[in-house]
Amino acid sequence: WRARGRGHILRYVALKWALCFLVGALAAAAGFVANLGVENVAGAKFVVTSDLMLDGHGSAFAVFLASNFALTMLAAVLTVYVAPAAAGSGIPEVKAYLNGVDAPNIFSLKTLIVKIVGCIAAVSSSLHVGKAGPLVHTGACIASILGQGGSRKYRMTCRWLRYFKNDRDRRDLVTCGSAAGIAAAFRAPVGGVLFALETVSSWRSALLWRAFFTTAMVAVVLRALIDFCQSGKCGLFGKGGLIMFDVTADYVTYHLIDLPPVITLGVFGGILGSLYNFFLDKVLRLYNLINKGKAYKLLLAATVTVCTSCCLFGLPWIAACKPCPTDTREACPSIGRSGNFKKFQCATDEYNDLASLFFNTNDDTIRNLYSAGTDDEFHISSILVFFIASYFLGIFSYGLALPSGLFVPVILTGAAYGRLVGMLIGSQSTLDHGLFAVLGSAALLGGSMRMTVSVCVIILELTNNLRMLPLVMLVLLISKVVADAFNANVYDLLVRLKGFPHLEGYAEPYMRQLSVSDVVTGPLQTFNGIEKVGHIVHVLKTTGHNGFPVVDEPPFSDTPTLYGLILRDHLLVLLRKKDFIRSCTASTLNALNHFSHAEFAKRGSGKHDRIEDIELCPEELEMFVDLHPFTNTSPYTVLETMSLAKALILFREVGLRHLLVLPKSSKRAPVVGILTRHDFMPEHILGLHPFLFKSRWK
Amino acid sequence: WRARGRGHILRYVALKWALCFLVGALAAAAGFVANLGVENVAGAKFVVTSDLMLDGHGSAFAVFLASNFALTMLAAVLTVYVAPAAAGSGIPEVKAYLNGVDAPNIFSLKTLIVKIVGCIAAVSSSLHVGKAGPLVHTGACIASILGQGGSRKYRMTCRWLRYFKNDRDRRDLVTCGSAAGIAAAFRAPVGGVLFALETVSSWRSALLWRAFFTTAMVAVVLRALIDFCQSGKCGLFGKGGLIMFDVTADYVTYHLIDLPPVITLGVFGGILGSLYNFFLDKVLRLYNLINKGKAYKLLLAATVTVCTSCCLFGLPWIAACKPCPTDTREACPSIGRSGNFKKFQCATDEYNDLASLFFNTNDDTIRNLYSAGTDDEFHISSILVFFIASYFLGIFSYGLALPSGLFVPVILTGAAYGRLVGMLIGSQSTLDHGLFAVLGSAALLGGSMRMTVSVCVIILELTNNLRMLPLVMLVLLISKVVADAFNANVYDLLVRLKGFPHLEGYAEPYMRQLSVSDVVTGPLQTFNGIEKVGHIVHVLKTTGHNGFPVVDEPPFSDTPTLYGLILRDHLLVLLRKKDFIRSCTASTLNALNHFSHAEFAKRGSGKHDRIEDIELCPEELEMFVDLHPFTNTSPYTVLETMSLAKALILFREVGLRHLLVLPKSSKRAPVVGILTRHDFMPEHILGLHPFLFKSRWK
Repeated sequence: WRARGRGHILRYVALKWALCFLVGALAAAAGFVANLGVENVAGAKFVVTSDLMLDGHGSAFAVFLASNFALTMLAAVLTVYVAPAAAGSGIPEVKAYLNGVDAPNIFSLKTLIVKIVGCIAAVSSSLHVGKAGPLVHTGACIASILGQGGSRKYRMTCRWLRYFKNDRDRRDLVTCGSAAGIAAAFRAPVGGVLFALETVSSWRSALLWRAFFTTAMVAVVLRALIDFCQSGKCGLFGKGGLIMFDVTADYVTYHLIDLPPVITLGVFGGILGSLYNFFLDKVLRLYNLINKGKAYKLLLAATVTVCTSCCLFGLPWIAACKPCPTDTREACPSIGRSGNFKKFQCATDEYNDLASLFFNTNDDTIRNLYSAGTDDEFHISSILVFFIASYFLGIFSYGLALPSGLFVPVILTGAAYGRLVGMLIGSQSTLDHGLFAVLGSAALLGGSMRMTVSVCVIILELTNNLRMLPLVMLVLLISKVVADAFNANVYDLLVRLKGFPHLEGYAEPYMRQLSVSDVVTGPLQTFNGIEKVGHIVHVLKTTGHNGFPVVDEPPFSDTPTLYGLILRDHLLVLLRKKDFIRSCTASTLNALNHFSHAEFAKRGSGKHDRIEDIELCPEELEMFVDLHPFTNTSPYTVLETMSLAKALILFREVGLRHLLVLPKSSKRAPVVGILTRHDFMPEHILGLHPFLFKSRWK
Repeated sequence: WRARGRGHILRYVALKWALCFLVGALAAAAGFVANLGVENVAGAKFVVTSDLMLDGHGSAFAVFLASNFALTMLAAVLTVYVAPAAAGSGIPEVKAYLNGVDAPNIFSLKTLIVKIVGCIAAVSSSLHVGKAGPLVHTGACIASILGQGGSRKYRMTCRWLRYFKNDRDRRDLVTCGSAAGIAAAFRAPVGGVLFALETVSSWRSALLWRAFFTTAMVAVVLRALIDFCQSGKCGLFGKGGLIMFDVTADYVTYHLIDLPPVITLGVFGGILGSLYNFFLDKVLRLYNLINKGKAYKLLLAATVTVCTSCCLFGLPWIAACKPCPTDTREACPSIGRSGNFKKFQCATDEYNDLASLFFNTNDDTIRNLYSAGTDDEFHISSILVFFIASYFLGIFSYGLALPSGLFVPVILTGAAYGRLVGMLIGSQSTLDHGLFAVLGSAALLGGSMRMTVSVCVIILELTNNLRMLPLVMLVLLISKVVADAFNANVYDLLVRLKGFPHLEGYAEPYMRQLSVSDVVTGPLQTFNGIEKVGHIVHVLKTTGHNGFPVVDEPPFSDTPTLYGLILRDHLLVLLRKKDFIRSCTASTLNALNHFSHAEFAKRGSGKHDRIEDIELCPEELEMFVDLHPFTNTSPYTVLETMSLAKALILFREVGLRHLLVLPKSSKRAPVVGILTRHDFMPEHILGLHPFLFKSRWK
C-alpha cells in the first residue's frame, strides 16, 4: 500500500486510530468485567461466610474452604486444559513479545477468554494473586487479535484489518493494549502509558500519543460504566469511583523531620523487594520441578488454595478482640462484605482487626490499610502477622497454573510493611499510618518491579493525592537503588526463567572488546538471485534460519554482489504458489503480479507455514525461481570489523531481526554472515569467548 | 576510561548520579529564585500602585508605567548587549540541541545568568510572558555547564568532571536539566520527566530513570525551600505550597451530559491554538524584519511594554464596578497585591472584576480564574475583554529580545477562554466555571504546544485533582487533532524560523522512493591511513566537513580498504601536537601514548579550534602523520542501494552525525559517500529531486 496514494494512507491512519479506540474500549470493558466478577463472586462468598459465622464456625469454614477450592480448581482446570499460555501474570510474555520474541499462543483467543475467566475465579478464591498482570495480558491479547484482523481459526476475520499485516504496526498496537490493561486495572490512564513506556524498549512520540489516546478511551469508558453502576445495578459492585483508594488530602502534611523514617522505609523496602524476587525465583524453580504433568499442576494449585484458606481463616483467631471505637462513622462491628471492623468470632461490640485484613477482598484490605486516621485500629502484632503471611502467600501463589498478577500482592504486602514501620517508629514521626502504608507499597513495588516512574504515577492515581509526590519519588528511588544492588527486577527474572531470549537495550562492557566477526558462527546459507527450487527446499528443510542473503553470481553481475535479504516466510509463499521458471534466466514478466499483497502479509500468531507441508514433485524441484522481486533490497548491514557493542545498539534501536555482515576486503564473498538475536545473547558470546567471563562484572 | 577497570566505571556512574543530583538541586534553586524575584518585585509594584490608586489615578499610572518600562528595559538591555542567546523561551534551542544541532552560545554561563535575571525582570514588568520556558533553558544551561566541567572561560573548571567529555553523556544531562526546568517551573516533577520525554527524540530506560531522579531532587529541594518560606522569611513570597493552583476536589463532578460542552471546548481550543501559532509565526517574521540592530530591538521592547502597560491600566476602566459578595471569606475589596476582588477605581464596597484579572501577576490571575465556586464573580464582558487582550498581548510579547516563555500566557489565555465557554454554555452544563478554566487551559495548550501527555500531567500536578483526568485527556486529544490539521506545533515553527536543521524521527513517504546514492553529493574527501600533513591542511581549509573516511591504499593493504572515520577535531589535535613522521611508512611506536585522553575530549560549547589558528612551516607540511590510531574503526555504514527512509531511521535512532555509504560493487572505491544531517533535510532532497514535490503530501 505504501505507494498507493493519499487515500490509502488516510485510511491506514484512520484505521490505526480506530483500532486504538477499540482496544481501549474493549480493555476497559474487560477490566470492568473482571472487577465486577471479583466483587460479586468474592463478595457473595464473604457475605455468606460472615452470616454463617454468627451461627457456627465450622460450617462457615467449610463453605469458605469449599468455595475457594472450587474457584481455584475452575481457574486451574481451564488454564491447564484449555490455554496453558494463560498461566501467570502475562507481563513477562508481553515484555518478551515487545522485545521481539514471539512465544507460541500467547495472544490467541482461547488464551484471552481463559485469562479473563480464570482471573476472576482465581482472585475471587482468596488466593494471594492480583488482576493487574492478567489485565495487561488481556489488553495485549485484545490488541493483537484486533491487529491481526480477528482470529482466523474461528473464522472471525475482517477484510479491513489486513492493513496491519506487519510486525511494527502490530507491536505498536500491543504496546497500546498493555497500556490499556494497566489503565483498566488501576484506573490509572497516565500510569498505564508510563508502564508501557518502561516495558517497551524503543519508543516514538507518535506511539506515545497513540498510547495516550488508548488509555484516555479506557478512562472515559470506565467512567461511564462506573456511572452506570452507581445506580446500584451491578450487585455488590458499585462503591468507589475512578479513584480506587482515596487518601484524604487533609492528612498529608510532612516536614523535614519525617525524612529519616521515609528513607528507612525505602531502604528496607528495597531489601524486602529484592528478597521477594529471590524467593519467588526459588519457588518458581521448585514448582517447575513439580509441575511435570497436568495432574501435578492441579494438585499443586489445590494444595496452595487449601493452605491459603486455612491461613486466612485460622490466623485471625490468634488476634485479641478489640472494643469498637465510639466515634466512628462506619458500622462496628461490620457484618458482611466490606468495612474496617470485621466481627469474626468476637462479641457484639468488638471487632477482630486481623480478620479485617485477612477476611476481605484484596482491594478492601488495601483500602483499610491506606485509610487515614486509623492509627489505633490495628494491633502491631496483627499487622506483623498479616505482613509475614501476605509476603509468603504472595510468593507461593504466583507460580500456580492459573492467571495471577504480582502487582496487588506486592501492594498489599507493602501496605502492611509500611504500617508496621509507622507503628515501630511511633511518635518519632508525624506522618499518618495510612500514609506510611502508601509509602510502604511504593517501597516494595520499587524493590520488586523497579519501574520507578510508572509505579510512582500509578500510586498517585490510585490514591489521588499529589502532595505525596516528593515522598513517593524518594521512597521509590531509594528502594530501587538498594534492590538493584542485589538482583534483577522480577519481570527480568521471570523472562529469564521462561527462557525467552530477551535482549537488553544496552551493550555490556565486554562487548566493546569484540567485533561482529567474533560472534558470527556457522556456515552461511545464501541463495542466488535465480535459484533452483530443489536447493531452496533443501536449505529450508535443513536449517532453521528465518532470513537468507540473496547474492547475484557472475552470469547476472560482474562479480558476486549482495542483492538483498529474503525471508523464510516469503520463500514458503513462493514455493506454495509453484510459479517457477524452467531455465536459469531472468524472467521478463513481473512475477510480483502473480501475487497479491495479502499473501506476503505477516501471519497471525499460532498459524505458521512449514516447509514440510509443501509437496513438490521431482520435476518441480529441478526448476528455478526468480527471487529478485521478493527480496528486501535494503537490509541493514555492518562491516565485519564493527564493534559488537555498536552493532547491538543498531540492532536494538532500529528493532531488527537480521543484520547482514559485510566483508572488509572486497576480495571475499559479498556477505560473510548474518546476525540474529541469538548472536547477541550473552550466553552465546561468552560461550564462544570464555575468557571474557572474568571481565564480565555482572 | 572504557577499559580501565571497575573502579573507573563505578566512579563514572557515581559521577553521573551526582551530576543529576546537582542539576536537580540547582534547577530547583533557580526556579525558586525566579519565583521569589517575580513575587517580590511584581508584588511590591502592585502594592505601591494600589496604594497610590487610593489618592489619584494619574500618579499610580505613572509609577506603574515607569516601573514596567524600567524592568523591561533592564531585561532587554541585558539580553541585547550581554547574551543575545538568552532571548525567547529557549525551548526551541534545547529541542534543537537534543536533536543534534549545536547553536552557538546557548549554554554559556553568560546566557544562564542573563536568562535568570532577565526572566525575573521581564515577568515582573507585567509583560505577557512566562517563566517556564526560560527555566527549561536555565535547567539545560546548568546541566550543560556542569557537564562540560564548568566554564573554561572563567577558569571555573573541575578536573573531576572531565569524564563527561562526550556528546552522549552531555546530551543525557541536558535532557535531565530540561526536565528539572519544567519541574521547577510548575512544581510538577512527573510532568517534567514527560516533557523531556516528548521533547527528546530517542530515549532509553536508564535515562528515564535518571531524569526521574533529577526531578525528584527538584521536588524535594523546592519543598524544603517552600517550608523555609512559610515562616514568612521570603517577603511577599510565601503563600502556596507545592501545588500552584489547588482546585478543590469537592467541585469536581461530571456526568455524560457534560461531554458535548467539553468536546466543543476542545474543538475551538484546537482552532484557537493553531491560530495562535499562525499569528505568532507572522509576528515573529515581522519582528525579524524590524530587529536589524540593537537599538531597534530595544525600541521594539519599549513600544510593546508601554502598550502593554496602557492596556493593563486602561482596560479595567471599561468594566462596571460590582458590589462585593457578602458571603466571601476574602477581604473585599482587596487592596494590595493579591486577592480576587481588586478595588481599582471603585467605591469602598465594590470591586472591579476586570482589574482582578489585569492588575495582578500572571500566577495570581490564573489562580483567580481556576478558583471554584466563583461563577458569579466575573461579568461575561470582562472575561471576553481579558481573553482577547491576553491572546494578542501574548503573541506580541513573545518575539521581544528578552527571556520570555510561552507556557504561562497560553495557560492564562486558555483559562479565560474556558471560563468564557462555561459562561456561554451557562446552565446547559453542571460543571463549575473554575473547572472550565482548567479545561480551557488544557485545550489551548494542546492546540498550541501539542504535547499531550506531558501537558496533561503538568495540568494535573498544577491543580492537584486527578478526578479531572478523563476530561483533561479528552480535551487535549481533541484540540491536538483539530490543531494538527492546520499547522505544526509552536516549537517546530520556532525551530524552523530559527533555521536549525531539525531532523524528524520519521521518514516521509517520498523518501521511500530514493536510495541513499540519490542524495549523496559533492566530491568525497578521503585520507590515506598515513597521510601527508600538507594534504590534510589543504582539505581542512577548503572544506567544512567534520568527518573524513580513512582508506588504506595498496602499499598498506592489497586493495583500497576502508579503515574508518576520523573527525576534524581530532585532526586538529594531531596537527597542533606536530607529532609527525618523516616518511610514508607505518610507525612502529604507539602514537597514542603521546596524547592524553583529555586532548581528544569534546570541547565545551563556544570553544572551537580552527585550522587557521594552527601554523605549520613548509617543512612540516611535507611530513606525514599516521592516522590509524586516531581513527574510529567502527563507523556505521549503509550500502548505496539502501532506501533513504531506512537510512534516516538508522541515522535518527542511533543518533549519528556521519553515516558512511559503501559501494554495492566491490570494483569501486571502498567508500562512495558520507551522509550528514543536511543530506536528510527535506529542502536538500527536494532540491536534488524536484519531481518529488508533487508526491510530497505535507
